[in-house]
Amino acid sequence: MKIAIVGYGNLGRGVETALLQQSDMEAVGVFTRRDPATLDSRIPAYALADLPHHEIDVAILCGGSATDLIEQSPDIVRHCNIVDSFDTHARIPEHFAAVDAAARETDHAALISTGWDPGLFSLMRVLGAAVLPDGTVDTFWGKGVSQGHSDAVRRIPGVVKAVQYTIPKESAVAQVERGEGAGLTPRDKHLRECYVVAAADADREAIRQAIVSMPNYFDEYDTQVNFIDEAEFKAKHTAMPHGGQVIRHGYTSPDTPQVMNFSLTLASNPEFTASVNVACARGLYRAYQEGKRGCMTIFDLPISYLTGLSAEELRKNWL
Amino acid sequence: MKIAIVGYGNLGRGVETALLQQSDMEAVGVFTRRDPATLDSRIPAYALADLPHHEIDVAILCGGSATDLIEQSPDIVRHCNIVDSFDTHARIPEHFAAVDAAARETDHAALISTGWDPGLFSLMRVLGAAVLPDGTVDTFWGKGVSQGHSDAVRRIPGVVKAVQYTIPKESAVAQVERGEGAGLTPRDKHLRECYVVAAADADREAIRQAIVSMPNYFDEYDTQVNFIDEAEFKAKHTAMPHGGQVIRHGYTSPDTPQVMNFSLTLASNPEFTASVNVACARGLYRAYQEGKRGCMTIFDLPISYLTGLSAEELRKNWL
Repeated sequence: MKIAIVGYGNLGRGVETALLQQSDMEAVGVFTRRDPATLDSRIPAYALADLPHHEIDVAILCGGSATDLIEQSPDIVRHCNIVDSFDTHARIPEHFAAVDAAARETDHAALISTGWDPGLFSLMRVLGAAVLPDGTVDTFWGKGVSQGHSDAVRRIPGVVKAVQYTIPKESAVAQVERGEGAGLTPRDKHLRECYVVAAADADREAIRQAIVSMPNYFDEYDTQVNFIDEAEFKAKHTAMPHGGQVIRHGYTSPDTPQVMNFSLTLASNPEFTASVNVACARGLYRAYQEGKRGCMTIFDLPISYLTGLSAEELRKNWL
Repeated sequence: MKIAIVGYGNLGRGVETALLQQSDMEAVGVFTRRDPATLDSRIPAYALADLPHHEIDVAILCGGSATDLIEQSPDIVRHCNIVDSFDTHARIPEHFAAVDAAARETDHAALISTGWDPGLFSLMRVLGAAVLPDGTVDTFWGKGVSQGHSDAVRRIPGVVKAVQYTIPKESAVAQVERGEGAGLTPRDKHLRECYVVAAADADREAIRQAIVSMPNYFDEYDTQVNFIDEAEFKAKHTAMPHGGQVIRHGYTSPDTPQVMNFSLTLASNPEFTASVNVACARGLYRAYQEGKRGCMTIFDLPISYLTGLSAEELRKNWL
């Protein structure tokens, strides 16, 4: 299976690392809009414009949703099958339609919006609803870095560096597991913790106020702001851990609660997302080989397609 | 979707309860080898021999693996599509082959060995291996009643009633979550707790010894034996709670551990198993309508097939 990587940020690097663990995949190269000579990739780097001249079974698109994928996915699927991790929830139907049309025109297949959320967490929410129809689902995220919230803090005058961790509140997780999660507010479910390096002459109290009162991002949450120096920031806050859990609580009969919980504890968010996307590339290519065309999501693939194992092997040793 | 239930033990009752929660399913009836007039079912009961005279989309087989399903599944699939929860791991390939041949002869479809283990836990083991190929998987069961171990205790002379709970050891779960589960023995992973009602004249110490030294069942475990009276047994030990977890620990790069954990906390083992089987019946029927024939497992069905939701709805609201 010949796999290409489009984009070489954190996710692209993660896909490169993941591909080197797969015995059934060959990494064709990294395709970039930057000068390929400037990339420190372990596999060959090429200009994105050269992509149509390469033989590729699946391209894994590693750009951002807002500006990259919305245009790249329908564009690149004209040349080969693609997997992306488009995560702007409100625009998924529109993105799906554009990718589906382009893929069908050129007889290709695509799998969009995968990773862990959207992706594995979506799968678990649907599985939970299918098995426990009389129930509720709650998703918790963290402890982990939210890029959007970190960016928002960095835009405040006087902030040099900043990272924001989203942390689920254990009391809320316990409530949900008991089936008592109805009515939980954003403030009840997650805590926001910021580590900020401020400029020497900055007014720290003003920065703190600007953060905790920021509409949409922080005002509906309990937010802790910690000021640290650059050395501590570099030592403790440059990794990208993340995680979370999807909890389905339901009743199979009036006094019979049942709980399904899927949780992730990730030392590296981009490397894990990359690993899911690589497994999905395998699954998509299997579907393509069986004649499937157009756009799909992780809901449409049998789990067996994600592995390189045969159906006989799966039945014998994995059931 | 017209669904039949074959067998009316705990699992059959659970399926009956689950079917009454589904808006897209009609319960055709319970089919039994007993006198149908003696069943206290809420839906009509018929003799098993009458099954071929009913219009059935999927029959959910609720018998035991050892004596019932090994014969019933290939037999009944000649009349209609079937779902079973065959769980004798060593005989799955043989059972699959028999069901597959019978189903193909008569143009039907079957889904075998579903429930939660085998079933959802199998799915999670495969998903974990697909996403984190450089990793290990461990399964813990409980706290829950093991029917096989409870039966073994009940066969000891002097035992009137008994129940055995399998309990995962928290220390072992923590070790596995840290990626240090290699070399864990059965004794390290699970504790066995027995509640026994002894005959008035029984030698309790002899019963205790007979339990803890029983080969295969208890000798490789730490086993606690508690003697209680009939009233306490009836009050506290007649429910069928269960649960467990599948933990995949893997590395996406040398110092980057990633953990996936799927856990179940079930107030009723048979009702939850039944709910999984009903969702699988929906999925199987969808595959059948799309032209799939022969025998399948839960690895072969897209998760979307288990729900009644459309692909558009899933993309819009569940990704």
